[in-house]
Amino acid sequence: MKRARIFHRGCDVWAEVVDGDSGLRLPNGQVIAASDAHWLPPVQRGAAVYALGLNYADHNKELGFAPKLATPLVFMKGDNCFVGHDGDTPRPADGNQMHPECELVAVIGKPARNVAEADALGYVSGYTVANDYAIREYLENYYRPNARVKNRDATTPIGPWIVDASHVADPQALRLTTSVNGDVVQDGSTADMILSVAGLVSYLSLVTTLMPGDMILTGTPQGVHFCAAGDTVFCEIEGVGRLVNHLVPA
Amino acid sequence: MKRARIFHRGCDVWAEVVDGDSGLRLPNGQVIAASDAHWLPPVQRGAAVYALGLNYADHNKELGFAPKLATPLVFMKGDNCFVGHDGDTPRPADGNQMHPECELVAVIGKPARNVAEADALGYVSGYTVANDYAIREYLENYYRPNARVKNRDATTPIGPWIVDASHVADPQALRLTTSVNGDVVQDGSTADMILSVAGLVSYLSLVTTLMPGDMILTGTPQGVHFCAAGDTVFCEIEGVGRLVNHLVPA
Repeated sequence: MKRARIFHRGCDVWAEVVDGDSGLRLPNGQVIAASDAHWLPPVQRGAAVYALGLNYADHNKELGFAPKLATPLVFMKGDNCFVGHDGDTPRPADGNQMHPECELVAVIGKPARNVAEADALGYVSGYTVANDYAIREYLENYYRPNARVKNRDATTPIGPWIVDASHVADPQALRLTTSVNGDVVQDGSTADMILSVAGLVSYLSLVTTLMPGDMILTGTPQGVHFCAAGDTVFCEIEGVGRLVNHLVPA
Repeated sequence: MKRARIFHRGCDVWAEVVDGDSGLRLPNGQVIAASDAHWLPPVQRGAAVYALGLNYADHNKELGFAPKLATPLVFMKGDNCFVGHDGDTPRPADGNQMHPECELVAVIGKPARNVAEADALGYVSGYTVANDYAIREYLENYYRPNARVKNRDATTPIGPWIVDASHVADPQALRLTTSVNGDVVQDGSTADMILSVAGLVSYLSLVTTLMPGDMILTGTPQGVHFCAAGDTVFCEIEGVGRLVNHLVPA
């Protein structure tokens, strides 16, 4: 099952994706065409959203970092940064080094605290796709997931929907691709993650209490490609979804 | 005027601080003794909370960093990390390098986007005190405000209340002190902030839209002092408030 959050006749509703992804069944049973939908970020109100920096060995190498950090680099995302599928993202005037980052997102299904890695996937209820655009710090040569870099308004497309975890046989064997105006710029696999989804849920559950609806953006593989206003960016994860975003002038 | 958020007879209510801070007037007009209150973090639901790393020159020097960063180091705080005045904070087993950080908190009063520094204080409706405990990364020698360092459950005491901005004549001329079991370990001034409150509101308003209730934790002066379970920690900012916290075993 896939669930999408959409804006429909003035309401913020969750709909079931049906008819081979071409339809959306509203809570009242009516089915509308997915092509007509105004997609909202499938992020629950009040959810805590964690994001990973430097969680793919190939991306770390590309940026000149050690292949594996001694401790995971986890930061928080604010509500303001999310935008739904097929939405517009402003490319800021200081965004010469703005690049897309295709990421598998794990959605927490039940409270998790001090969970062993072997049990951790049992706490994941679903998955979605995020494009956690980075607006690089070109002024300084260290990497910090600053608000300037990672928390601008509407700079994190997410969606189109949440797919049930039961439909994803192995979250560590998924191809991720990003294309910009039709050219593939990222082509990686979740097999290359440093901390797996299970490892991340377990690690975070030692640091905090994960609650239903909380999300983990699990990092991105190599393929830094700077974008411009006017670009159309597709982030796709096999078996999860294909997320479209339009970069527009700020 | 000072407003506190408390837990009273099963309800989460905002109360006015009266009678020389000894009383709390409930929404129904009843006044209870402040000494009997169960204090909650004065953070609005859904508020975005930004925090600054390395925003005091003396603290940067103490940690071995350049006195001023080329770009401000801003990170987000999750709801899970807050705890009210006189509350308990678990000191984690890996918290040998856990230390308190007394910080002035600015509360946003109206939507702010692309605000000039000269106008920025007009968007601040109040102030409070936070103790943004850090649990240092002793494994790596760079500074990243990681979830492990800065977002553990109940590791950010905040309060006791929000004081109206009209009662703070100059937010850049306030003494901040931290004492642990009666010994002063931090004694600084907001005059030593690198980016002032007005500068931070202006800077963040270029990056995001600040909304009413959003908060900015503005950084801490020098005075790294590692704490242990059993310690009682006072963070005080003159004219704003005195925040008490109890470190307990995890």
